[in-house]
Amino acid sequence: MPFTRIILREGYSDAQLKQISDTLHHCLVEEFAVPVDDRFQVFETLPARQRVFDKRYKSGGRSDDFIQFHIFAGKPRTKAQKQNLFRLLSARLHSHLNIQPDDVMVMLQFNTADEWSFSHGRMLSEEAL
Amino acid sequence: MPFTRIILREGYSDAQLKQISDTLHHCLVEEFAVPVDDRFQVFETLPARQRVFDKRYKSGGRSDDFIQFHIFAGKPRTKAQKQNLFRLLSARLHSHLNIQPDDVMVMLQFNTADEWSFSHGRMLSEEAL
Amino acid sequence: MPFTRIILREGYSDAQLKQISDTLHHCLVEEFAVPVDDRFQVFETLPARQRVFDKRYKSGGRSDDFIQFHIFAGKPRTKAQKQNLFRLLSARLHSHLNIQPDDVMVMLQFNTADEWSFSHGRMLSEEAL
Repeated sequence: MPFTRIILREGYSDAQLKQISDTLHHCLVEEFAVPVDDRFQVFETLPARQRVFDKRYKSGGRSDDFIQFHIFAGKPRTKAQKQNLFRLLSARLHSHLNIQPDDVMVMLQFNTADEWSFSHGRMLSEEAL
Repeated sequence: MPFTRIILREGYSDAQLKQISDTLHHCLVEEFAVPVDDRFQVFETLPARQRVFDKRYKSGGRSDDFIQFHIFAGKPRTKAQKQNLFRLLSARLHSHLNIQPDDVMVMLQFNTADEWSFSHGRMLSEEAL
Repeated sequence: MPFTRIILREGYSDAQLKQISDTLHHCLVEEFAVPVDDRFQVFETLPARQRVFDKRYKSGGRSDDFIQFHIFAGKPRTKAQKQNLFRLLSARLHSHLNIQPDDVMVMLQFNTADEWSFSHGRMLSEEAL
């Protein structure tokens, strides 16, 4: 049920976007217990003039590879789950794509299963799960 | 007071965007009791490489016409209101624009009237309503 | 900790975007007690056909300069703080950039410090502040 906005620089290849998509999704499956076929993402690629970020705030140093994940999810997760997601995503982006941990920012936002409809006007909380 | 992000493929005509805008807005007026002149929307048209979605998760089958509505609204609605909005929007998109119900995803997010200012720095909850 | 989406027309110069960025940021520092180096923003510049807004709803009259600030922040603020932010932002955009108060819309959305990671997979609520 998560929907994620991934905000990053221009210039990534289709293969790299696919790798970023896969990396995020696998982390959500592992740490947030998201079903494996529940994948919804948007890549927002922006020129430098449209992205403003501090180079140093709570980071050892951000580069042009700075990437933000704004994740909207429909049921609450524990503090431990959130912490594990943050850690795993940062580690995997580093090992799989050589994106530096200093360049990875994540924001979560939760609502409820009443607030999602995946198709046909069906409310998620009323669907057979 | 709702603000809606409408995320869809490229290639729609101005007339079609207007029809989608109207369809959503009329549903919000009818089911969420939104004032008729309270319309705020953004169309986010994206190439296929920037939209990632599962073809089958809780849908009979999504096509390239897949469309997402991310609705931010400022006061709570009942479960019945949410359900009615989902159903009506799906039905109307089908009848008015031939967008398949399998292709319609909706997400809602609520905050409060203290968290909106429409102009002049006036807080919505302090305005004469 | 705020992350702000700034939605506006195309055609602003880099210098003007910088001025808008500075104006918002200084308001957040002054009214929301945001650290001075905690700046994260995205400019979403859109052609007219992708922005739908009522010209008159709770405004004396919106022009093509209509600008929306969608601010995501990680800890609660009082009603007075929100009201002060709305007022200051509207006033400063007017005096610094000649953007009319009728053209300024602001939306706030709050989550918690558990829901932010600025880098290295560290949860904000676990960081030394």
